Amino acid sequence: KLLAAGYVWNGFGKTAGLVQIQELGTLETPIALTNTLNVGLVHDAMVEYMCRQGERRGYPVYSVNPVVCECNDGTLSRIAGRPVQAGHVSQAIAAAGPDFEEGDVGAGKGMICHGLKGGIGSASRVVELDGKQYTIGALVLSNHAVFDDLVVAGTPIQSLLDAHIPPHEDKGSIITVLATDIPLSERQLRRLCHRALVGLSRTGSFCGNGSGEIVIAFTTANRVPHYSEKAILPMGMVHDDAINPLFRAVAECVEESVLSSLLHAETVTGHHGRTVRCLSDLLDEK
Amino acid sequence: KLLAAGYVWNGFGKTAGLVQIQELGTLETPIALTNTLNVGLVHDAMVEYMCRQGERRGYPVYSVNPVVCECNDGTLSRIAGRPVQAGHVSQAIAAAGPDFEEGDVGAGKGMICHGLKGGIGSASRVVELDGKQYTIGALVLSNHAVFDDLVVAGTPIQSLLDAHIPPHEDKGSIITVLATDIPLSERQLRRLCHRALVGLSRTGSFCGNGSGEIVIAFTTANRVPHYSEKAILPMGMVHDDAINPLFRAVAECVEESVLSSLLHAETVTGHHGRTVRCLSDLLDEK
Amino acid sequence: KLLAAGYVWNGFGKTAGLVQIQELGTLETPIALTNTLNVGLVHDAMVEYMCRQGERRGYPVYSVNPVVCECNDGTLSRIAGRPVQAGHVSQAIAAAGPDFEEGDVGAGKGMICHGLKGGIGSASRVVELDGKQYTIGALVLSNHAVFDDLVVAGTPIQSLLDAHIPPHEDKGSIITVLATDIPLSERQLRRLCHRALVGLSRTGSFCGNGSGEIVIAFTTANRVPHYSEKAILPMGMVHDDAINPLFRAVAECVEESVLSSLLHAETVTGHHGRTVRCLSDLLDEK
Amino acid sequence: KLLAAGYVWNGFGKTAGLVQIQELGTLETPIALTNTLNVGLVHDAMVEYMCRQGERRGYPVYSVNPVVCECNDGTLSRIAGRPVQAGHVSQAIAAAGPDFEEGDVGAGKGMICHGLKGGIGSASRVVELDGKQYTIGALVLSNHAVFDDLVVAGTPIQSLLDAHIPPHEDKGSIITVLATDIPLSERQLRRLCHRALVGLSRTGSFCGNGSGEIVIAFTTANRVPHYSEKAILPMGMVHDDAINPLFRAVAECVEESVLSSLLHAETVTGHHGRTVRCLSDLLDEK
Repeated sequence: KLLAAGYVWNGFGKTAGLVQIQELGTLETPIALTNTLNVGLVHDAMVEYMCRQGERRGYPVYSVNPVVCECNDGTLSRIAGRPVQAGHVSQAIAAAGPDFEEGDVGAGKGMICHGLKGGIGSASRVVELDGKQYTIGALVLSNHAVFDDLVVAGTPIQSLLDAHIPPHEDKGSIITVLATDIPLSERQLRRLCHRALVGLSRTGSFCGNGSGEIVIAFTTANRVPHYSEKAILPMGMVHDDAINPLFRAVAECVEESVLSSLLHAETVTGHHGRTVRCLSDLLDEK
Repeated sequence: KLLAAGYVWNGFGKTAGLVQIQELGTLETPIALTNTLNVGLVHDAMVEYMCRQGERRGYPVYSVNPVVCECNDGTLSRIAGRPVQAGHVSQAIAAAGPDFEEGDVGAGKGMICHGLKGGIGSASRVVELDGKQYTIGALVLSNHAVFDDLVVAGTPIQSLLDAHIPPHEDKGSIITVLATDIPLSERQLRRLCHRALVGLSRTGSFCGNGSGEIVIAFTTANRVPHYSEKAILPMGMVHDDAINPLFRAVAECVEESVLSSLLHAETVTGHHGRTVRCLSDLLDEK
Repeated sequence: KLLAAGYVWNGFGKTAGLVQIQELGTLETPIALTNTLNVGLVHDAMVEYMCRQGERRGYPVYSVNPVVCECNDGTLSRIAGRPVQAGHVSQAIAAAGPDFEEGDVGAGKGMICHGLKGGIGSASRVVELDGKQYTIGALVLSNHAVFDDLVVAGTPIQSLLDAHIPPHEDKGSIITVLATDIPLSERQLRRLCHRALVGLSRTGSFCGNGSGEIVIAFTTANRVPHYSEKAILPMGMVHDDAINPLFRAVAECVEESVLSSLLHAETVTGHHGRTVRCLSDLLDEK
Repeated sequence: KLLAAGYVWNGFGKTAGLVQIQELGTLETPIALTNTLNVGLVHDAMVEYMCRQGERRGYPVYSVNPVVCECNDGTLSRIAGRPVQAGHVSQAIAAAGPDFEEGDVGAGKGMICHGLKGGIGSASRVVELDGKQYTIGALVLSNHAVFDDLVVAGTPIQSLLDAHIPPHEDKGSIITVLATDIPLSERQLRRLCHRALVGLSRTGSFCGNGSGEIVIAFTTANRVPHYSEKAILPMGMVHDDAINPLFRAVAECVEESVLSSLLHAETVTGHHGRTVRCLSDLLDEK
């Protein structure tokens, strides 16, 4: 189990698993991303997967806390059709690895970010502490905010493009996952989560009512074993006076992740014939 | 939608739906109680139920926040077998009404409370405000604490019985739902939740590590419509100087609910042949 | 007493009074702004002031919750000299009114914001709900962030100026107070507080470790009387679906307030001969 | 600086210093206990004391976060007279040591607990982890709850005494400080704080509206240096599966501390001639 923390900037969302992360400070399953109406199904499939893993390894699973996050893809997808199936979850876990696609893939398929095609985006920074290099990475599922508010690398979209995007409400969400190999306490992981909001603000979001802004952070440097003969475990933490480069890295990673999700996505036409264009197409046009 | 609040005293639990309750202050589905490994399935069935309700009424459901709470019944039940099915959820909702059974029923079937057969328990108090009578009620799903710690109406169980219950770890949980028709704000509903802990302490719990103590409170007096032409809605709240009788009522209701769950349950023999005795049997013996 | 809420984005700060605001949802004194080492003295003077007010009106003060916020002016001021005196507090309260100065006044005298002279800044927006006009206003005490990060109305300072400001650490804080006449619940006031962070991010802050970001919001529309014969009081709240214009207003007001604090301040030379220049001078130079 | 955490069960109180404890997880001054209207003065005297200490040791104090807790002694004392002076604070710090008095001493002088003379109470437990003995201790400033609710070691006061105490409102508070030498993370210290409520409930409190229940916990085993050349520091934490004996110890310590505060106090007659009797006198009478 990895030390972890969660933070809810805006809780208009159905993310499951945060209660136990906040109490025990640990993450004990993969983090699944899906759409709003499939949280339960994915949660159930994660339990099934963990039970089968447990059986295979000879210890029955008695309790497990799946973490399932969601955004609403009801504009592009027939969300009430609920096409996600349990098999998709085990496929996704099997396919998880260091190389992954960004843009309109996975849960990102139906996402709309700043009125454009959004989805999965990721970025990372290297930070040096005590002469050693560490990494902080962010991954977002972007489905929030409106076109007119979009800011690309400090420049409002209107100065970049004269594209017309039909007016739309800010009612999606954005999920942010932060991962690092820096030894941090649960309290410090929560402090990292707070800085994700800087990145989201920099790309132009004002965190609308309907936008569920949820952030989860974990470190691979502090691990809690399932069972331990020793009651007292050694952990590491960063002196808070040395934490600023980490905060700055989080702000930058999250900003870049949002933009990366936009730049990797392709134009998609959804179930009602509604087309959502991608940023690259708009840039090409110009 | 009813004004609501949630509070986590100890978050070793998988309850889903709290994030949105805390943000929007509203409850928009029934509250489902189940076991630990069926949260996802029940969540999914609740979504299905709400979607079908929406279709029937002519408005498609786009987003819904099911509230699903759980305790672990892994001692009495073959929990990894996961026998709960979607149909059980719609049956449970259809059967919901002012008259309900307590004890080893529903999610309470596999619960063990203070080493005895636990499950569903409920109690209520009448409070007078401004010359009008209001009700506060509690319902618990009791699955927590150890036998030696049990206190019945102020008397430790050892003074009441010389029963021998095999030593066992405190690893279950207790879910508490508070309902009232008193006009309260979300902040005040959270204050009520805090007082549930008094009732749990009075029956002898010390809130063990594994015990997920989660409390949800709602009022039927302050309702938020799904859609409203008016932006500003009238609400009521109690002057906090007049709130003590409500706090006292919560403490008493929760204490009585735990005892009621014990007194209504029958002795049950579980899947490994493990028998959990009920309090009434022990009292009869003596 | 006015309905109120507080939110701590980054708690490296000594603000007093938040505990009770969060519990009771009310503000019962003016909000005082001072420097880090004078929180106690100002707190004490506020108590003295409230006691004397109580005596004058014939009811003795038994309990009062002063709200005192602070930023650290240790660069410009001889902070350990602690020159603030009780009389300054009553003078400040006596002088409070609808017209007030911005910039390097009051607690703002010693503040440094983005490496420039900061201090008091304020801005407001008008929002229409149900055909009626309401106001949301922000007031900041700005003492945070570094020069190179400053963004003015979407444009990084480096593109505006070629000024050289000696490199400095991000170790100050910023206090934000939000005031409105819109009927909001305590939960909704807290939601407003969360959007203040958008404004702070827009001017370039990444919320450094040493930066105590504290936000307090109150509404004049929902008042709780000190004593009430009625236990149940009427309140108003906005339907959360109509809250987006308020969120947008908060983000804009806070952004503008930070800039206003910079634009109203004058160049100041502090106790060690350290000069902190003001933004207007830099703009004039160019 | 010691690792620390704070928790507010009921925030009708003026405790200062919690904001920074929760953010940085450290305690950097002694914890002062005083009455409601002297929080500011004591805060100011703590700053003065720390500044003088800093000067003496050759480093000027630039920022410090005094922790000042309070209960209201307005029944026995002429609270608006505000007799506490700065000198009392330095005297109290100078006198602090391993041996200390309980009962009606210090801030405890004017306290009323369950209608009887309350004040300072303390208790501790020894816990063994990995073959080594550790200590958990509690100290309370008791000023809360009503006589009829008092439970002494599981027995309601009415069964022990037929004393008549004039009916009184539950409007005081109780401050609880937990100290240990067990290595715990900030998250785990907060978990300890949550179990203090069990002890308070066991002596009969239902946590009334006016009762500010505030808990602070710290450990001497995890220390954060003011300045550190290394960015990454080693820390220890307990495996949460081994934490139950600590939770049980906290519940017991806090229960015993409340009773100890009652048993060590003497009958006191206050400024209006109001006499508050002590528990020992009532027990002697019987």
